[in-house]
Amino acid sequence: MKIDSVDLFYLRMPEVLDIGDGSQDGIIFRVRAGNYEGWGEAAASPLTSIASWIAPMSHSGCHPVIDSVIGEELNSTSDIERISRKVKESSFYGIIQSDLTFSGIEVALWDLIGQAREVPVYQLLGYKKSEPKLPYASVLFGDTPEQTLQKAKSIRSAGFSAIKFGWGPYGRGSVEVDTAHVFAAREGIGKDAYLMIDAGTIFNENLEAASERLQSLSDAKVSWFEEPVAAAAVSLYKELSRMNPLVPLAGGEGAHNVFQAEDLIKNGGISYIQIDTGYVGGIGPAYQIANFAKNCGVQFVNHTFTSHSALSASMQPFAGLKDSWVAEYPMEPKLLCIELNDSKILPDKDGMISVPERPGLGISFSTDAITKYLVDVEIIVNKKTLYSSPTI
Amino acid sequence: MKIDSVDLFYLRMPEVLDIGDGSQDGIIFRVRAGNYEGWGEAAASPLTSIASWIAPMSHSGCHPVIDSVIGEELNSTSDIERISRKVKESSFYGIIQSDLTFSGIEVALWDLIGQAREVPVYQLLGYKKSEPKLPYASVLFGDTPEQTLQKAKSIRSAGFSAIKFGWGPYGRGSVEVDTAHVFAAREGIGKDAYLMIDAGTIFNENLEAASERLQSLSDAKVSWFEEPVAAAAVSLYKELSRMNPLVPLAGGEGAHNVFQAEDLIKNGGISYIQIDTGYVGGIGPAYQIANFAKNCGVQFVNHTFTSHSALSASMQPFAGLKDSWVAEYPMEPKLLCIELNDSKILPDKDGMISVPERPGLGISFSTDAITKYLVDVEIIVNKKTLYSSPTI
Repeated sequence: MKIDSVDLFYLRMPEVLDIGDGSQDGIIFRVRAGNYEGWGEAAASPLTSIASWIAPMSHSGCHPVIDSVIGEELNSTSDIERISRKVKESSFYGIIQSDLTFSGIEVALWDLIGQAREVPVYQLLGYKKSEPKLPYASVLFGDTPEQTLQKAKSIRSAGFSAIKFGWGPYGRGSVEVDTAHVFAAREGIGKDAYLMIDAGTIFNENLEAASERLQSLSDAKVSWFEEPVAAAAVSLYKELSRMNPLVPLAGGEGAHNVFQAEDLIKNGGISYIQIDTGYVGGIGPAYQIANFAKNCGVQFVNHTFTSHSALSASMQPFAGLKDSWVAEYPMEPKLLCIELNDSKILPDKDGMISVPERPGLGISFSTDAITKYLVDVEIIVNKKTLYSSPTI
Repeated sequence: MKIDSVDLFYLRMPEVLDIGDGSQDGIIFRVRAGNYEGWGEAAASPLTSIASWIAPMSHSGCHPVIDSVIGEELNSTSDIERISRKVKESSFYGIIQSDLTFSGIEVALWDLIGQAREVPVYQLLGYKKSEPKLPYASVLFGDTPEQTLQKAKSIRSAGFSAIKFGWGPYGRGSVEVDTAHVFAAREGIGKDAYLMIDAGTIFNENLEAASERLQSLSDAKVSWFEEPVAAAAVSLYKELSRMNPLVPLAGGEGAHNVFQAEDLIKNGGISYIQIDTGYVGGIGPAYQIANFAKNCGVQFVNHTFTSHSALSASMQPFAGLKDSWVAEYPMEPKLLCIELNDSKILPDKDGMISVPERPGLGISFSTDAITKYLVDVEIIVNKKTLYSSPTI
């Protein structure tokens, strides 16, 4: 079969707040080929991604993504690889947003092949079975250490034994305030739970500021310190990793191709590589990174802050890896991301989560939610409409 | 003074060919503050960049570039640094195109401050004098080795003693054909001229294919082998650099931030770092890389394939560095890029080029050319026009 159509749906909450919450809007892709349909998401600015989909070609290395996708043969997973390569070779200069845009499409292609073959994506990847993962609740710090404490307590009593706090006030004030937040988080979840801290790149290239936080993190026995510096600051990661070996580093969500993730593993001294399939190029590239990480003794972790369809997409690449046993679990998504899926990935009686044993991603999209949150966009170039929001 | 306005002009040739020629369209930025005006360019897909300029905010880390620029104080070069930092902190996730978009704006900010102070940008950077550079003619390979030979001869007789051939058929056929092209280039320009070869990332992650070309390149005594693999494939660069030390490697035009360029210098084993100010974040980041390269014994080279305003912008960051003595010189730009500037950077009697001794970039933009090539764009989101092409 051939890829007949790709529809891009830009969804948005009626109000978007200036906070570190990536679940306030979304860009969803529906791919149709033959009698099948696949869906995927990118973790990307929707309007910018739409533009990279249909932008007029600038030169042979700067094609819009659409040129490499529509009309392509799609019968097997090797076709997905071939299409990915075509995008890389046609859109590698001046249109870097295409890496993110194609990520959502690539996920939809796997979902579609999974639907056609009636097997879950993880099996298409060659895994015989999926290993349950310990979900860690991923939440924002409270505004005050007291709020962080309460939040930690309530999440712990909700049954989570691993919690990650991030963003919010962290790194924006004094070392003392940050320390108070970290200790409050530890106190709230108890000594026996896993605690992770996510700096959200707040220290950018300020290695000293990041390093001043290490003592409190090691005192609080955190499992990892995430994104202390800018995503691409490989050498700074390396330096920081040497300063206090009791504080393992995590990073990688900003990697928009395989090379960057492998570079961070090889030269950045990280212990956990966190990959968003909606950012890194899709499920194929994420699988490649998961195996590279495994061979380097680094744990692979999904990056997911939005919907359960995105969660499934980001769990498939390491579903069969026993040694990579934790999974990020979005805890406070906005209504858009809650309503987006008709089914969810829920912890089992042991508190573990698994990818669905259903074809493709195994999570369906709600047409009602898409209709409800759809943003109306029109892009007109020299009187020609290159994009207008599709109907569902 | 405050930044009052930024206008984005999307220019395009009436016909754009599917070839490795980046001069077929362009995105130009005009910044106004107080009584001054500055201009800059990004090496980026125009429509995608426009979208990243005005896209509705997704979350605190995914703002459109406009949010960090309009209304900002702009009185000195430290304001440019501050604004750059603001963009980095507000647009670092999901809107990676913003790196390219802001590059053009950052260049315009330097131009504007240069106009206001009545000094060239290189002096604002702290250089006392500008050092003349040997321009290398940057051209595409011929379709056949015979065409490459003729092209080499004619460029040599036009007075150039350094020539770079790239793209076109290179890497698309057999090793033998590529060898024939390289030898033809060497024969055409003569034994005493500098010859560079640009693979344009054609071998992507195929290290073996790239390595098979090394012998011919060393036989032809090339000054460098450029972008043999994907821009971000730092480890592959390193491996290739060890295979034949007689073939120095060059790369970096795909770096869209300082970290990536420094990583390539530190971990990639390259001998030449090639930076486009319209890609890497602007003149400030390029200057930072130039100094990092100098301290690592790596030569800094501009990447310029378009206009003479882009040439000036990309030469300023290393204008004062004596050890970085070659400059890429666009030889075959399309009419758009020829007509875009009212003045040019021309070789002097010794065949050397220098940045203009005029305020700012020292190259003015032709309003006629902008009017002639302007593309009419309208982006409407929920009935609100977020962008429509400005008038000059």
